[in-house]
Amino acid sequence: MRVQKGSATLHAEMSALENSGRLPASAYEGATMYTTLSPCDMCTGACILYKVKRVVIGENKNFLGGEEYLLNRGKEVVVLDNEECKQIMEKFIEEKPELWNEDIAV
Amino acid sequence: MRVQKGSATLHAEMSALENSGRLPASAYEGATMYTTLSPCDMCTGACILYKVKRVVIGENKNFLGGEEYLLNRGKEVVVLDNEECKQIMEKFIEEKPELWNEDIAV
Repeated sequence: MRVQKGSATLHAEMSALENSGRLPASAYEGATMYTTLSPCDMCTGACILYKVKRVVIGENKNFLGGEEYLLNRGKEVVVLDNEECKQIMEKFIEEKPELWNEDIAV
Repeated sequence: MRVQKGSATLHAEMSALENSGRLPASAYEGATMYTTLSPCDMCTGACILYKVKRVVIGENKNFLGGEEYLLNRGKEVVVLDNEECKQIMEKFIEEKPELWNEDIAV
């Protein structure tokens, strides 16, 4: 959504929450969030705010986000270490390094 | 923005980041985030993602968010305990309880 909408905050997890609409928090409670990549600190916080119960992560080799904090906050975290997810991310990082690095302050 | 845009994620801090546009992370690094109310877990995470250095909070009596986590992550947290901020929040909560409670799962 950085590209499509010029958005600095609509990461995939945020976008999924937005796409589900303006719902009361009870609608998200207990849900499972599925992500290709380990969620960043912002998306980790969003999962906690909305009381997501379980986060299923495709891979965390290309980026390791807030998994420990999710566990500390009582969430179930499942890391699939999925080969396809790793290849998708690797390809993206290799082809679009300027996009990949855009929200990483160096 | 729940009301104006039907958005479940555009809390004030998120909206401030969005309004600043699609910038590289280095543009936010070291910034100070000013909030009326103690930031929720999502907004706390967003401050961490963008390497905000300092969070100045109007009040944390009506809601206490991720202040401890911000401190644990090396951020400077300033709580003003400002009377005007408390009154603004109290008035809002009293007049619009359904909005206030919308993203609190009970």
